[in-house]
Amino acid sequence: MEQRTEISELGEFGLIDHLTRNFEIHNASTILGVGDDAAVIDHFGKQTVITTDLLVEGIHFDLMYTPLKHLGYKSIMVNLSDVYAMNATPTQVTMSIAISNRFSLEALDEFYEGVYLACEKHGVDLVGGDTSSSNKGFIISVTAIGEVVPDKLVKRSTANKGDLICVSGDLGGAFLGLTLMEREKKIYLENPQLQPDLENESYIVGRLLKPEARKDIIEFLEQNDIMPTSMMDVSDGISSEELHLCKQSNLGCVVYEEKIPISDDSRKAAYKFGLDPTVCALNGGEDYELIFTMKQEDYDKITLNEEISVIGYLTDIEAGCKLHTKGGNTFPITAQGWNAFQK
Amino acid sequence: MEQRTEISELGEFGLIDHLTRNFEIHNASTILGVGDDAAVIDHFGKQTVITTDLLVEGIHFDLMYTPLKHLGYKSIMVNLSDVYAMNATPTQVTMSIAISNRFSLEALDEFYEGVYLACEKHGVDLVGGDTSSSNKGFIISVTAIGEVVPDKLVKRSTANKGDLICVSGDLGGAFLGLTLMEREKKIYLENPQLQPDLENESYIVGRLLKPEARKDIIEFLEQNDIMPTSMMDVSDGISSEELHLCKQSNLGCVVYEEKIPISDDSRKAAYKFGLDPTVCALNGGEDYELIFTMKQEDYDKITLNEEISVIGYLTDIEAGCKLHTKGGNTFPITAQGWNAFQK
Repeated sequence: MEQRTEISELGEFGLIDHLTRNFEIHNASTILGVGDDAAVIDHFGKQTVITTDLLVEGIHFDLMYTPLKHLGYKSIMVNLSDVYAMNATPTQVTMSIAISNRFSLEALDEFYEGVYLACEKHGVDLVGGDTSSSNKGFIISVTAIGEVVPDKLVKRSTANKGDLICVSGDLGGAFLGLTLMEREKKIYLENPQLQPDLENESYIVGRLLKPEARKDIIEFLEQNDIMPTSMMDVSDGISSEELHLCKQSNLGCVVYEEKIPISDDSRKAAYKFGLDPTVCALNGGEDYELIFTMKQEDYDKITLNEEISVIGYLTDIEAGCKLHTKGGNTFPITAQGWNAFQK
Repeated sequence: MEQRTEISELGEFGLIDHLTRNFEIHNASTILGVGDDAAVIDHFGKQTVITTDLLVEGIHFDLMYTPLKHLGYKSIMVNLSDVYAMNATPTQVTMSIAISNRFSLEALDEFYEGVYLACEKHGVDLVGGDTSSSNKGFIISVTAIGEVVPDKLVKRSTANKGDLICVSGDLGGAFLGLTLMEREKKIYLENPQLQPDLENESYIVGRLLKPEARKDIIEFLEQNDIMPTSMMDVSDGISSEELHLCKQSNLGCVVYEEKIPISDDSRKAAYKFGLDPTVCALNGGEDYELIFTMKQEDYDKITLNEEISVIGYLTDIEAGCKLHTKGGNTFPITAQGWNAFQK
């Protein structure tokens, strides 16, 4: 009998490792391949970073509560976030879509309004793409290109023991927004007369539907002469990202629960849903904040920036990845982030 | 009432024109945006070309007769073809896929075998991508990157009156392969006991399932000091591509039916299916040959290359785009190529 291994047994990262395990690099211009936020290509003094994302209706977004303009905006933003995570500046994007005949031209125009708004806000050019049909649903594929001076490029694998772990903004909001929308959707489907009341939840809804790539943080680091020792964006939850950084840098870490930035709105929403705000912040995905490490001596440079929180530091690999709770306990950090192949 | 315009009313190219009509370029490095085989980005002396394709199961391929290894190979090849069509050398690709749980790891391995084979054959590095799940079917998004010395870049819009129109290889084979496979599929679905006999049809089946990007033609042109005045790849059929070249270069053309290269195998298959071989060559898609124009004085340089056929020449725009038939008649060329949004 032919062997059949389920993809779900490997998970997304296991699958990527498996599929790319035997691949050799041919071109001298390929500086960095699979395994970071973006690939890096050398181009005579400047480097090009390239990253790509595939978004599928029903898997990555639900059009029942995602306005098309927001979807267009977010599709671009999540890719720009990966470019910034390399400490690079996004310059071009391509946008490919496949749509069923359920969508009208007016619907597409709305989607592209969001695309253009995101591009304009970040000074990025839409340079190409592909438009075709699908049997069912909306499929979006975006590739973003950026540039960076080689000695400014920041990878995941270059952190050092003792470095401080920092995150931008606050965490868990997008996951709580998703939880709210899924709950409201369920209520609506059971009783279409009930209109959802999202008035007081605009913060977490906005975190879900309209994430903003943290260009401002990259600019702040540049202006204040802070060179992160490693960086990535927070798309799957900081537990998962933290484990990636540590694994690739061959280190362990300590994260302090009380230092994890969570907004009041997110905290309130979490309590309302009976969820632990810390768990939402650690394991909720799609915040599109930046997590980075820096030398301890740079600490003074960031204390005045309220958008940056120091949440822990890097240790020897033997010490593992640990969370110190407010109650004084210590737990190993495990990745419970979004897994595309979970059953 | 809200307006609803069907996408099918515009067609693929009308849709792209519509969606990109108001978009301004922000970055000086954006040399060429939407509207050619690939976009072009400036990088200090060399230029980067970038192109992307989205392939959806049931729309762009049918897994009933497409082996996964061939699908992986073709997904890469169609993108490399776009890079060569800019007279550039492909260097990197990204591959994103979304798959339903119908696919096992072994199935994916087979797909990636084809991906790697294509990459290796063309010296291209797989540098990134995205792997996620879909509710239904297999979705593939590939982006290819290439490089070109700026004065070697060949666009669609730069042909001149009097230039010769050339195509590589032969045409119509992929469409005839598709016709055969669709016919055999229908027979099989009606009577699963009947095994298809494809033995004598290996040429057209190969043209469909295993297209080869014409790196050799680009190398030949370089070695023989031929600079095409315009070029694109043949993905929708030469009627459609010819109209693109003429429109973008502001010219008309004359194409001679008797000069259109059609293989004996394709011709035989066409007769068997009751189709006109010329119509298959003009309007059948997916041949992934190159169509290019060159100065008349370069004619002697290509006469010894059996892989290049001169099929016509460029005229004033007022003369329109014309086909001279073997019977001595003249017809306007119309695009009946593949339209993703046809009902």
